[in-house]
Amino acid sequence: MNVYNLIFGKPLTSSSESLEQLAISSGIPVFGLDALTSAAYGPEAALTLLIPLGVASAFYIIPISLSIIVLLGIVFFSYRQTIAAYPSGGGSYIVASANLGMYPGLLAASALMIDYVLTAAVGISAGVGALVSAVPSLLPHTLSICLGILVLITVLNLRGLRSVGIAFMVPTYLFIVTLLGALGWGVVKAIAAGGRPTAVVAPPQVAVGGAVATAGVWLLLQSFASGCTAMTGVEAVSNGVRAFREPTARTAQRTLTVIIGILMLMLAGIAYLTRAYHIVAAPPGKAGYQSVLSMIVAAVAGRGLFYYVTIGCVLVVLALSANTAFADFPRLCHAISRDGFLPYPFAVRGRRLVYTQGVFALAILAGALLIAFRGVTDRLIPLYAIGAFLAFTLSQAGMVQHWRRNKSTRGWKSSMVINGLGALATGITTVVVLVAKFVEGAWITALLIPALLLLMLGVHRKLNRAARAVATKAPVDLAGEPPLVIVPVQIWNRVTQNALRLAMRLSDEVEVVHVHSEDDPPLVDDEWRELVVKPAQKAHIPVPKLVTLKSPYRYVVSPIVDHVLEVERKNHGRQIALVVPELVANHWYDFLLHNNRAEMLKALVLLKGNRRIAIINVPWYLREK
Amino acid sequence: MNVYNLIFGKPLTSSSESLEQLAISSGIPVFGLDALTSAAYGPEAALTLLIPLGVASAFYIIPISLSIIVLLGIVFFSYRQTIAAYPSGGGSYIVASANLGMYPGLLAASALMIDYVLTAAVGISAGVGALVSAVPSLLPHTLSICLGILVLITVLNLRGLRSVGIAFMVPTYLFIVTLLGALGWGVVKAIAAGGRPTAVVAPPQVAVGGAVATAGVWLLLQSFASGCTAMTGVEAVSNGVRAFREPTARTAQRTLTVIIGILMLMLAGIAYLTRAYHIVAAPPGKAGYQSVLSMIVAAVAGRGLFYYVTIGCVLVVLALSANTAFADFPRLCHAISRDGFLPYPFAVRGRRLVYTQGVFALAILAGALLIAFRGVTDRLIPLYAIGAFLAFTLSQAGMVQHWRRNKSTRGWKSSMVINGLGALATGITTVVVLVAKFVEGAWITALLIPALLLLMLGVHRKLNRAARAVATKAPVDLAGEPPLVIVPVQIWNRVTQNALRLAMRLSDEVEVVHVHSEDDPPLVDDEWRELVVKPAQKAHIPVPKLVTLKSPYRYVVSPIVDHVLEVERKNHGRQIALVVPELVANHWYDFLLHNNRAEMLKALVLLKGNRRIAIINVPWYLREK
Repeated sequence: MNVYNLIFGKPLTSSSESLEQLAISSGIPVFGLDALTSAAYGPEAALTLLIPLGVASAFYIIPISLSIIVLLGIVFFSYRQTIAAYPSGGGSYIVASANLGMYPGLLAASALMIDYVLTAAVGISAGVGALVSAVPSLLPHTLSICLGILVLITVLNLRGLRSVGIAFMVPTYLFIVTLLGALGWGVVKAIAAGGRPTAVVAPPQVAVGGAVATAGVWLLLQSFASGCTAMTGVEAVSNGVRAFREPTARTAQRTLTVIIGILMLMLAGIAYLTRAYHIVAAPPGKAGYQSVLSMIVAAVAGRGLFYYVTIGCVLVVLALSANTAFADFPRLCHAISRDGFLPYPFAVRGRRLVYTQGVFALAILAGALLIAFRGVTDRLIPLYAIGAFLAFTLSQAGMVQHWRRNKSTRGWKSSMVINGLGALATGITTVVVLVAKFVEGAWITALLIPALLLLMLGVHRKLNRAARAVATKAPVDLAGEPPLVIVPVQIWNRVTQNALRLAMRLSDEVEVVHVHSEDDPPLVDDEWRELVVKPAQKAHIPVPKLVTLKSPYRYVVSPIVDHVLEVERKNHGRQIALVVPELVANHWYDFLLHNNRAEMLKALVLLKGNRRIAIINVPWYLREK
Repeated sequence: MNVYNLIFGKPLTSSSESLEQLAISSGIPVFGLDALTSAAYGPEAALTLLIPLGVASAFYIIPISLSIIVLLGIVFFSYRQTIAAYPSGGGSYIVASANLGMYPGLLAASALMIDYVLTAAVGISAGVGALVSAVPSLLPHTLSICLGILVLITVLNLRGLRSVGIAFMVPTYLFIVTLLGALGWGVVKAIAAGGRPTAVVAPPQVAVGGAVATAGVWLLLQSFASGCTAMTGVEAVSNGVRAFREPTARTAQRTLTVIIGILMLMLAGIAYLTRAYHIVAAPPGKAGYQSVLSMIVAAVAGRGLFYYVTIGCVLVVLALSANTAFADFPRLCHAISRDGFLPYPFAVRGRRLVYTQGVFALAILAGALLIAFRGVTDRLIPLYAIGAFLAFTLSQAGMVQHWRRNKSTRGWKSSMVINGLGALATGITTVVVLVAKFVEGAWITALLIPALLLLMLGVHRKLNRAARAVATKAPVDLAGEPPLVIVPVQIWNRVTQNALRLAMRLSDEVEVVHVHSEDDPPLVDDEWRELVVKPAQKAHIPVPKLVTLKSPYRYVVSPIVDHVLEVERKNHGRQIALVVPELVANHWYDFLLHNNRAEMLKALVLLKGNRRIAIINVPWYLREK
């Protein structure tokens, strides 16, 4: 148990919950990583679509980034309001089901769950992908490294949230400081140079005019949609409000503000410097590929130590961004399970106050996804972001409904407008992303979301049916005959002696069953009289009835089972208890040495029995502790 | 069950044993295949070693074959005597342990068991090897075909011996008739031609003089030793006497006579024709390889339909010769298990009166061997035959001792001389085979035999210790306080209601345990009074005691286990019964839906408990049958 505690930490009492809760400083690494790291791929994704425009792309990134920042602002205000309105956790599932009904709520939940699995898989594979392109000799081990990181993140999360916050704090803040530093330094240099700075290391030159002279609306829309991947992860904080320190809602709001503020600064800085240095994205997968962030940092600071630290931090936090999914997915499962749409164990907090089952489920699903796609990010990306935007849309539509119902709230109209705008913008984005990526793999997500929805409805139906079937407010029923106890005795030894002793002390009506076949020795009458009849008479206890069963096929277990079922049929409504004497060996592998009739008997009676047949397992340990 | 019966046959009653027993005609395919098919590889193995002598090898095969036939005669008379002396089964294990003691007996058993596993693996791989050299496109599927045949033979043996006898009768007799026919026809032709017949298809020519002019003693000894593989399988009948029809000993003796007679005829015919046609073995594994048997049949009858039928039969019966191991290995395990050196299940006859566990064990071991050696005969051969000859030696040494102890038997002296000669000859052969093949793989067998011996001794020690530990002739002890019954109740429903009902009917002292943690609802006092206290008072039954346990770590199962252990400690010597209410779902996969506390509780109490703690499992089936 010591190794176990070393890896997973000692168990925590329920009352230490507050100690496990997050401040702003530890909340940012836990819930903000996904959002913040999307600065590393969002603008890049938008610029990649603009490559056909050549250097003109650097012009268009300004309005696109501005729209994303504005949209981010709308989403920020919306979620700020959501946190206030749902201080015990206001994820899309809760907001959508509370305001729009069960089906939209479950739709949002399915979308979000699938997106979280993708977040975990994409984060890890992107980080490992970057590592592997830096150290090509690791390429054949891509999948193993991915799975290794997955296991590491899983163990950290099983230890609890604060452990994660502490472990991730250093790389997260190093990432924020170095990247914001690089961007700020660049902006200062650019302004000092009148908007025309000289690059320390110039970005690769491309033809001045692209293949397309001016940008079409569809191209810009696509670019905007791709850039919107910068917004994934924003949802996380509102879903995990309860993980924050008191006052939870206020702490969560502040954390959200800091995260989104930093993200906006990063997006704005990247857009400005892209324009200032005339940076054009490189087509991914081609030789000499370099990321936009790498070009910017090199242009601002050159390829010195600072460059490598900054880019190194980007790689590390990308891999760790998978953790956002681990912080949120189990909480989401908990909420769904509490409403009866997922099995009960998802609702239970484990020894470290974590929703253990959810962590396991996410680890298994993300691992399966990584294995299925061999850990290659490019194959996973088309499945990604659809779920998040669908959930955004439903959540904000839910908030619109929320304001319509709460017209007494001050400023409900403007709030509703903000949420309505957000819902409209994210709704359009959802459709654009789905259409643009459909053939490449978005169809998989489009199939998985309703499949998961149907699964949850099925679980709900089953759980409901089971709950109805066992529910009762009736008191215990003590009428009827006392139970009849049946004891199989093949050979007289301490095992059967101990079992019969218990049986005779529990019930006045005991039946001893002996199966007689050519391969087993018979129970002799003399023995029976000496071993059982006389002691019973002496103790003034009713003498058990001896029943001998014939076994032409040499079976021992099934004649006993058949006999018990027959006795139950003949004694209608009466409770029957079958005693199963069991020799418990010293080691698990000793089961190979003995006949395992006791285990077979227990399993078979449980399989074939009914509500009136109980199984009394009387163990006899070879070595007594 | 219908498919099951179709594959494995309907169960057989013990009284139908005699119907399952073998006549001479069905005994030959069951116990004789291994011995008879060794005619296909024994002489060939001897001739292969003589290749350096060139055409002179055909001269030396006559004395070598004669010695083998003489040795076979000695062994035959020895086993004939053994069958008479041990009519209930006189395998090497029984004869050696009865006359030489436990350790020699177990040594013979280990040797024989390992040789049987090799017989199964070699037989199948040799047959498949021949098939594959005829149809080279099957080469990549060697292992799959081997395992397929293994499964087929296993299923046939699980159906019972007679099924095997009938299934194998046609190929066995076709093999005997065609091969003896070819040999007889050849001998007649040769005698008619004055000992110098003309071959229909001439065997491949080799240089008249070999690399070595005259044969050294060591070479002839090696050749003799290799040729002795023709004797493997002779043991089978004496080990399986009980499988024969009444009068068992007589039927077994006659079967042995027929098998050895045919084998001798085959060996003599092959030797004579090898000499007459000046046949020299081809080096195996070289291009254009052809077996000696193939050369002889082609020389006698040409390459017509008869040739192909004969050679085809050889291939089929080689593959089926694995079956001899299946007929004998389980019987050997049965005998060892009866003496307590193998786990009890090996001693039990299954539904078809077969020692099922032995069949499974052999199938698994032979399958593992085939997989480990990729189904290639050449790699298996060096491990083979050592076990058989070691067992021969021990068995015949045992018979020598037998005659010394039974000096009243008529002709004990001559019998002892025969057995002594046999023991000496087979003993020398064992040493020669071990030395000649040691580096190629015989060392594996030399390690496996003592390892198996040690394993059996370990099993014996463990079983003995367990038997002593549980043995008692004391009557049931009914003194002391009546048992205390503990019922965990987390929530009041039909499951717990039904369990508490049984508990209160079984014992006057019932304790209801409720684990209270923040995640579980409490059991309210009012409820308790209405549901339990009032009905108990009304029925004049003692009211159960309600115990509430605190669970700071939110565990439910382990506080109950700890409580039970504590109650047991406090009530020294008293029997405790823990009631485990269990909801049994409709489908096995439903276990994912529910908390599986009942299963965990049962397992944990069994693991941590002691002899005084019984487990009363009270199932509540969601759907009642």
